[in-house]
Amino acid sequence: MGEIKEAKATLIGGMKFEGWAGSGHTVMMDAEEVHGGEGAGFRPMELLLVGLAGCTAMDVISILRKKRQDVTGLEVRVRGERADEHPKVYKNIEIEYIVTGHDVEEKAVARAIELSTDKYCGATATLRHTAEIKISYKIVDGD
Amino acid sequence: MGEIKEAKATLIGGMKFEGWAGSGHTVMMDAEEVHGGEGAGFRPMELLLVGLAGCTAMDVISILRKKRQDVTGLEVRVRGERADEHPKVYKNIEIEYIVTGHDVEEKAVARAIELSTDKYCGATATLRHTAEIKISYKIVDGD
Repeated sequence: MGEIKEAKATLIGGMKFEGWAGSGHTVMMDAEEVHGGEGAGFRPMELLLVGLAGCTAMDVISILRKKRQDVTGLEVRVRGERADEHPKVYKNIEIEYIVTGHDVEEKAVARAIELSTDKYCGATATLRHTAEIKISYKIVDGD
Repeated sequence: MGEIKEAKATLIGGMKFEGWAGSGHTVMMDAEEVHGGEGAGFRPMELLLVGLAGCTAMDVISILRKKRQDVTGLEVRVRGERADEHPKVYKNIEIEYIVTGHDVEEKAVARAIELSTDKYCGATATLRHTAEIKISYKIVDGD
């Protein structure tokens, strides 16, 4: 049997739900004002993109460290365009990696992103079933 | 063009990343100790399940309220089993809905869940590409 992950959403009031996961952490979710919420938390569909950003970011930082690259910062920006029709899945996703460090090799960055995208990241592997995923990266010299 | 959602993961240190989304909210993500983290945040793949739970929970509560059901509580529990091999996508997902209220009609609950699952919930529509999704529900009388 594969690894089990657990999560939960519990109604707090209005459209506000507390999200919880098996690691013990919690996060607030809420609908937008136009959908009867108060905007007091993440929209649930945003969390798919946050998870995607974190998933591939962890892969990339691990691989770059294994490749002994002197990385001082990493930001992964994700932009998802939803379909017009329900269930409004993401149909286009752009992922931009901004790697900061000293003499970071472009080849290492490109390879790390490729390994995450094609092999390791479970979120990319899931979301690419509905979305065309476009990737770009930038390397910045600095602390 | 469809609705745009934005998200970001920013390295804080170690394997810790701050997740952010366009609604303005933030959440911490971290790897497990065995993967070089400190467990000080959500595992990114957990956020897919939290988003799924929240997405379908918001659909169901909206629909039950439209159907004038007297719902006092809603909890959506999700359990995902990942594949053994990379990229370890979810291959089985169980969703359990626990609806609390007064004289809540089973037919209304079943229909609300069906509408979310088959029509409205973008997270279900995404995750079902890799996972077989099993659904169950319980109706509890009470406040």
